[in-house]
Amino acid sequence: MNGPGPLSLNTVTVKERWGLAECIEGCARHGIPGISPWRDVLQAMGVAAAARRIRDAGLTVTGLCRGGMFPAADAAGRAAALEDNRRAIAEAAEIGARCLVMVCGGLPPGSKDLAGARAMVADGLQAILPEARAAGVTLALEPLHPMTCADRSVLSTLGQALDLCEAMGDGAGVALDVYHVWWDPDLARQMRRAAGRISAFHTCDWLVPTTDTVFDRGLPGDGVIDIPAIRAMAEAAGWQGGAEVEILSRRWWSRDPDEVLPLLLERHRTAC
Amino acid sequence: MNGPGPLSLNTVTVKERWGLAECIEGCARHGIPGISPWRDVLQAMGVAAAARRIRDAGLTVTGLCRGGMFPAADAAGRAAALEDNRRAIAEAAEIGARCLVMVCGGLPPGSKDLAGARAMVADGLQAILPEARAAGVTLALEPLHPMTCADRSVLSTLGQALDLCEAMGDGAGVALDVYHVWWDPDLARQMRRAAGRISAFHTCDWLVPTTDTVFDRGLPGDGVIDIPAIRAMAEAAGWQGGAEVEILSRRWWSRDPDEVLPLLLERHRTAC
Repeated sequence: MNGPGPLSLNTVTVKERWGLAECIEGCARHGIPGISPWRDVLQAMGVAAAARRIRDAGLTVTGLCRGGMFPAADAAGRAAALEDNRRAIAEAAEIGARCLVMVCGGLPPGSKDLAGARAMVADGLQAILPEARAAGVTLALEPLHPMTCADRSVLSTLGQALDLCEAMGDGAGVALDVYHVWWDPDLARQMRRAAGRISAFHTCDWLVPTTDTVFDRGLPGDGVIDIPAIRAMAEAAGWQGGAEVEILSRRWWSRDPDEVLPLLLERHRTAC
Repeated sequence: MNGPGPLSLNTVTVKERWGLAECIEGCARHGIPGISPWRDVLQAMGVAAAARRIRDAGLTVTGLCRGGMFPAADAAGRAAALEDNRRAIAEAAEIGARCLVMVCGGLPPGSKDLAGARAMVADGLQAILPEARAAGVTLALEPLHPMTCADRSVLSTLGQALDLCEAMGDGAGVALDVYHVWWDPDLARQMRRAAGRISAFHTCDWLVPTTDTVFDRGLPGDGVIDIPAIRAMAEAAGWQGGAEVEILSRRWWSRDPDEVLPLLLERHRTAC
């Protein structure tokens, strides 16, 4: 097997210590060739300035995190979500991101209507698809671990994401995060089905025990996910874009990013 | 829609305060017609004595929790698991349980070989199936929420459980817990496929936020699961066995069971 290809730093990995300027400089300093900003740090710098600085640093933008969050309790809420997604598409285009990562949203507050929330997701994606196509921005649907179904994403499996992609046609892809898909008994079959649809590949690890449903991810190699096996499936499906490391972790957020980035590079080589 | 049928108390719901004797007496006192013991409280009383007292109290035994936990790091560990499952089958038969609930086990310590662990589960089930059939005990395969894949169950979806049931034939069924299956985008299709295979139906609820991956379940009605909708699917698939309430919750364990049981009865009527 070849190596995992180039590494990209998702900025959430160091969110407690570094803004976007420090991330750009840190990637250059440590030899990380890619970056994937979240919108909060992007907007804090200003999108035009950020686009220029990322370009000047020679970094590949492997994604923008994140669009989505379509379900809402009322029509005004859903319309506001669409507007925000349109701004996200424009931002992704301006920084030259490979894709806009879509975290589609959970149940509206107080709702138990999972089918209704899923319909809101499908409708929202269809509504913004023309703008995404016009801007040349791929909407990368990210299935999220089922433990986030209530509050973050009713899109829970790769199979479900690919069903949506097929309904959407051009302009839709999937963002694969090993943390969200590793447990899936249908993964091998769906990865074959994902050929030509993979727009992002995210790494981190599942710790045992896991003490928080969102903020306790591990560095690649510290958990139980067979990351090289999943990467091999992605590459068999045509993926050639390297790996973006995205660690949401209170433990790692407390550390000095100049100590964390060398670890990320090492784990990218040895555990991905 | 009719009511949810008779209620059964899974003893883990009050495990910090009551042993099996108190559970049997509590069910009688509060008018709960069914019970589902865990093996620790069953063995603490003695299986023969427990069988007699449960029978004398007129309680239906909706299940015995639990068999399973097949994957192990070496052959000796796997053999020990089989022996323990054989004892569990004998216990289930002795107390007249409708089924032995199977929590199949996670990855062996230090392993990332998910396919291998799943094969150990399938092999273990096949190994004990003759004893289960001879004893007239249905092995009720319980898919567990994917967040437990690493350390409790590599059996994560109803579809996966039904695939195993089909390979096993007579003597195999599924234990459906709404907590474990509610998020599944393939649920409606798999519930149709489950016709004739449902051996247990467990209730509780998914809280938002969920603060622990195992011990933070809610009472039915306190979370986001549309329990009546899932019950209707089970009944459409032939289920007529009522509902067993199983709450693993540090919050509820701290309460007086004589306060909790009336709440369980009320929620069984109003939220299930």
